[in-house]
Amino acid sequence: MKRALLLLLLAANAFALEGKWTPQQVLKLDAAWLKKEGLQLAPSQLWDPARGSGLLAATIDTGGCSGGFISADGLFITNHHCLFGILQEHATPQDDIITNGFLAASRDKELKGSTSRIAVPHKFTDVTALVLAAIPPNATDAERARAIDRKASDLVAECEKQPRTRCRTAAFDGGAWYTLIESIDIPDVRLVYAPPRAIGEYGGETDNWMWPRHTGDFAIGRAYVDGKPYKPQFFFPISTKGVKPDDFVMVLGYPGTTYRALTAAEMAERRDLFFTRRQEVYGEWIDVLQKATAGNSAGEIAVADNVKTLSNRFKNAEGQLAGFKRGSILEKQQARNEKVLAWARTQPKYADALAAHEGLAKMIAEQRRTWDHDFLLSHTYASTVAASPLGPKALYLATTVVRNANELQKPDAQRDTFYMQRNQASLQAKMRREQKNFFPAADKALLESFIRRAQKLPAEQRIAGIDRLFPDANVAARIDELYAQTKIFDENERMKMLAETPDQLKARHDPLVDLGFALDADIRDLLTRKENWDGTVSRLRPAWRRAVEGEAGKPIAPDANSTLRVSFAHVQGYAPRDGVWYRPQTTLAGVVEKDTGAEPFHAPESILEAAKAKRYGQWKDPQLGDVPVDFLADADTTGGNSGSPVINARGELVGVNFDRVWENVANDFGYNPTVNRNVNVDIRYLLWILDQVAHGDGLLRELGVR
Amino acid sequence: MKRALLLLLLAANAFALEGKWTPQQVLKLDAAWLKKEGLQLAPSQLWDPARGSGLLAATIDTGGCSGGFISADGLFITNHHCLFGILQEHATPQDDIITNGFLAASRDKELKGSTSRIAVPHKFTDVTALVLAAIPPNATDAERARAIDRKASDLVAECEKQPRTRCRTAAFDGGAWYTLIESIDIPDVRLVYAPPRAIGEYGGETDNWMWPRHTGDFAIGRAYVDGKPYKPQFFFPISTKGVKPDDFVMVLGYPGTTYRALTAAEMAERRDLFFTRRQEVYGEWIDVLQKATAGNSAGEIAVADNVKTLSNRFKNAEGQLAGFKRGSILEKQQARNEKVLAWARTQPKYADALAAHEGLAKMIAEQRRTWDHDFLLSHTYASTVAASPLGPKALYLATTVVRNANELQKPDAQRDTFYMQRNQASLQAKMRREQKNFFPAADKALLESFIRRAQKLPAEQRIAGIDRLFPDANVAARIDELYAQTKIFDENERMKMLAETPDQLKARHDPLVDLGFALDADIRDLLTRKENWDGTVSRLRPAWRRAVEGEAGKPIAPDANSTLRVSFAHVQGYAPRDGVWYRPQTTLAGVVEKDTGAEPFHAPESILEAAKAKRYGQWKDPQLGDVPVDFLADADTTGGNSGSPVINARGELVGVNFDRVWENVANDFGYNPTVNRNVNVDIRYLLWILDQVAHGDGLLRELGVR
Repeated sequence: MKRALLLLLLAANAFALEGKWTPQQVLKLDAAWLKKEGLQLAPSQLWDPARGSGLLAATIDTGGCSGGFISADGLFITNHHCLFGILQEHATPQDDIITNGFLAASRDKELKGSTSRIAVPHKFTDVTALVLAAIPPNATDAERARAIDRKASDLVAECEKQPRTRCRTAAFDGGAWYTLIESIDIPDVRLVYAPPRAIGEYGGETDNWMWPRHTGDFAIGRAYVDGKPYKPQFFFPISTKGVKPDDFVMVLGYPGTTYRALTAAEMAERRDLFFTRRQEVYGEWIDVLQKATAGNSAGEIAVADNVKTLSNRFKNAEGQLAGFKRGSILEKQQARNEKVLAWARTQPKYADALAAHEGLAKMIAEQRRTWDHDFLLSHTYASTVAASPLGPKALYLATTVVRNANELQKPDAQRDTFYMQRNQASLQAKMRREQKNFFPAADKALLESFIRRAQKLPAEQRIAGIDRLFPDANVAARIDELYAQTKIFDENERMKMLAETPDQLKARHDPLVDLGFALDADIRDLLTRKENWDGTVSRLRPAWRRAVEGEAGKPIAPDANSTLRVSFAHVQGYAPRDGVWYRPQTTLAGVVEKDTGAEPFHAPESILEAAKAKRYGQWKDPQLGDVPVDFLADADTTGGNSGSPVINARGELVGVNFDRVWENVANDFGYNPTVNRNVNVDIRYLLWILDQVAHGDGLLRELGVR
Repeated sequence: MKRALLLLLLAANAFALEGKWTPQQVLKLDAAWLKKEGLQLAPSQLWDPARGSGLLAATIDTGGCSGGFISADGLFITNHHCLFGILQEHATPQDDIITNGFLAASRDKELKGSTSRIAVPHKFTDVTALVLAAIPPNATDAERARAIDRKASDLVAECEKQPRTRCRTAAFDGGAWYTLIESIDIPDVRLVYAPPRAIGEYGGETDNWMWPRHTGDFAIGRAYVDGKPYKPQFFFPISTKGVKPDDFVMVLGYPGTTYRALTAAEMAERRDLFFTRRQEVYGEWIDVLQKATAGNSAGEIAVADNVKTLSNRFKNAEGQLAGFKRGSILEKQQARNEKVLAWARTQPKYADALAAHEGLAKMIAEQRRTWDHDFLLSHTYASTVAASPLGPKALYLATTVVRNANELQKPDAQRDTFYMQRNQASLQAKMRREQKNFFPAADKALLESFIRRAQKLPAEQRIAGIDRLFPDANVAARIDELYAQTKIFDENERMKMLAETPDQLKARHDPLVDLGFALDADIRDLLTRKENWDGTVSRLRPAWRRAVEGEAGKPIAPDANSTLRVSFAHVQGYAPRDGVWYRPQTTLAGVVEKDTGAEPFHAPESILEAAKAKRYGQWKDPQLGDVPVDFLADADTTGGNSGSPVINARGELVGVNFDRVWENVANDFGYNPTVNRNVNVDIRYLLWILDQVAHGDGLLRELGVR
């Protein structure tokens, strides 16, 4: 046994297939190598750029999630949580489809999601030269960033003149190249099947990031065009044979954001400052909010969203730091960087990489000089209309009111997007909504923590407005005064403020609004510096990445940027620690074993009954002796891959990706083959439920299974 | 891989070797079967009754633990915690051998344990006929129990007239047979080697019962006779090759107590009442004591022992109940019982088994009638002088003072042992010592919980003395009065009470002492009933067990009773739950991985350094690529097996047993082959430390390793 495991571990290293490959890159990969890894198709069957077709064309973007077509009549599969919005829209107390699940009895009973839409990939055009040509000579870095943004927008606007087309100019590795992506926009999406919530979310937060896993995180929708089922160019046939350990699989989808192209100096900033400070500050803030609301249910509800987001980021920061350590991620990046630098020094063609690397290091050094100032300040304003900063509401409301007054002075077209006329209604709604998240005792406690941190900043990083209002250690008392004096927490007064000019606002002599003015100048300065750094990256990263690829002598997959990618992988378990082996597959028996009769482990009676009666139908895996539920593979995934179709060597659907394991959370920075595992639901679990529990015979027929 | 695991799981079932066999039984087992399982010795090499020798003769009783001779000059190995007393005896602030460990530089530097002694097995004689002949005709069950006890004591007294001989009359399966066991008594035991505590207890309470495990729970002593190293008849040569998965091993030792011979009705009482009530009551008492002492360090210290014992029993009860469920232990016993009953009905020779089974059921039914009364009452008095009951000190002190006064009225020989003249000093010391465990607020809270439970007993189970003193719901106030009025918490007054006659005690009109008198009558009644039940069991169990063995048609190992046993096993991992496989071996890398720099995971720097430098010497396992630390086997063990030598198919020492896994805690009631695993330290971990870290060259030479 031990020997078998060891061989497998060795194999695991041999199998390590780092990379989220773009459709264009797939065609450049060594076909013989892919065949050796297990692919039984020609790479051109994955993507045919001439026709805009192939397996990748069946991989859709559902808006934050991925999905895949699975029938000629536009059926697609994705995660349960990716179509959850449609369930929410149609659930009623009389027909609680969230709890009970949903299966459309016929096509006319399918449930339309009013805001759901999908995009089907169609065409990828390299527009790097066009974008770069738009940068004026001698542009500063900030001007450069703005020029690139403008050109990207222009290309999209021109492209979207085509009917039913959604376009995007995507930057790869911070500007190493730009691609104009054209997709077919399908705004009519309907829910066909969703399991009961207790299946789709089995294990809930407790099992999130964990293995072994027993979640049936799947749902099926259908795309419609002009009221008729959409006929995709390609769809994935369902494999009824499923997977077994060591099987070759591919995960297709739209991974969100990764950071592997960062230099070691940039990664060090993430590890030593970004995640470390998040862990420290958010840990404190969670504590502050919980203590300030303990035993007061109105208070607990008011801060619940903020505590949840803080907790998620806190846990993520912990995981990232542990992953950095476990995978020696920074040390390895350092070593790789050194190797590339040494190589580039001998290659005149790549001489600019040396300057680029130095320039990025200088940028990081500059960021570090004001790092803690900028980090604190970034918690006083929202980066989008929808989001709220995690800091005190007092500062958020004040900076928003002031910024709005300032922006309203400008012609509409010159304003920051959030403050344009078309967004004013959303902004006002948001400013009203914040009232229900405001609980004075909690906000005061959070502000006190914020002020005390601001007072500890080194002299050259002090926030002047804060220092003025809080000149001494007497913070709590001054906060009480401030909250007593300001009118900004009065919803009607706040709405009035949103219509006032800067002079009118100043004439109020409201101390919190005055602080808003002081902070606004700092914020604008920070935003300018950020824009400048974006420009710096777009100027320097390309040369550096060219050298990295040059030294490697083979294609390197760019960082994830929510564009279509494919990852090649194998079904396999892993050793989370000495003495323990996580098997790559779980079974129905495990669902029963975990069941406690209470959330989040409260499986529907119908499932437990069928399991108890061993009513497996044809879905019993011969090796497992049971219905398979979830499986692990070493696919290179990240957030955004939720709902990704998982297909076998012949292009048949064998599963749906829905998570990564905890030990793998730092794979956004570096690929650690010993723990890089993604979590997938086995398609046979869905088929078993449809067949033996939900009795979805019509659906099974359409899937070609009956 | 999966296939390999499945094959292994199937194999695991085939390997399931239930049974803690007695030396005599080993000779009756099928030699061909043992050979097939892996034994490479003749069974007679395990035990030669004529010479009182063989491998089993090298297996010693260290008093609560097991051990094994490992050199011709009396070296023996056992667990670290089994020789911990000697470390405590000799440790000083200047020479902290507990923390640093100890290695005798030469024989004259070995450390004698003033209370340590060992017993070497020598002779086993069946005395069943002698014991049974001592029972008077028409004896009641209580008289029967007393007659058996007396005869057993007489046999021991006669036997111990031999020099240097320790004897015991052991009852097997409640009296199915009796064996007189003669051992060589060696009272001169010296410590030769103990690792640092951070090795010997690595993982502490956190890892207790857990796998994966990384504890170096071993120590080496030497037996001396007349000041010279003892020359054992047999010793285990050390295997330097160690073990690998699937290897055949044997675990030899003195397992304490198991309950597999109970009928299903008796097991139901354990599951549904005994463990269930312990979980419920002890859970509440832990809570009560913790709340009553929270924030008061004197209080916390006073109740620490009680809380620890309650917590251990609470956790154990939880594990037993979970194990009963996991292994369907009661249901399987029920099915086996039915089978035996059906068979016995067709066998005139076993007709008495039917009546015996019914008699045992009647006894249980009788116990159930007063079960909750008896359970509560049993927490008011001590079952030995050393132990304290887990209930309130108030009741314990009161019942002890009263019982002592009553017993002192009798001639010394007729008293209960605890109150005989020779034990009066210990009793008084104990009654003094209890002062430091007394914290009024905690004891009042515990008494209140006790009283409230007593008040909820059904009418026919009420405790009269309690009802009299606590007639209504006004419990807390009455307790305050009681504690204010009684003198029993005054140490000097209590010592005076221990010298008084019952009349003198009564004349005090101390309300708590008066309650003691009322409870004493109940307690004596309970003790008589218990004695009666012991007699019932000794009368009925033998017939029932004969039928069980008759139906099986092969030897059945009797329940553990602290006598010498051997278990046949294989090295193998297990699946604690769906999707997880516990590998059967851990490594040095795992010690480093767990190290946090703080207790209980604070490995000595010397170990971490040697691991980091990969200074493995010859001790690297070729398959593991590292020094092995602990391993699992499916040996049938229980408490008392601590320190048991683990030997390979050729009789060489490969490890030392020190624990079971959590999923296996209910194996005292039934053997569940899928999770029955014991935890052993790999002898190569000891050898590696002696070789590469402690530089114990002389010791290694004596072990034949150099």
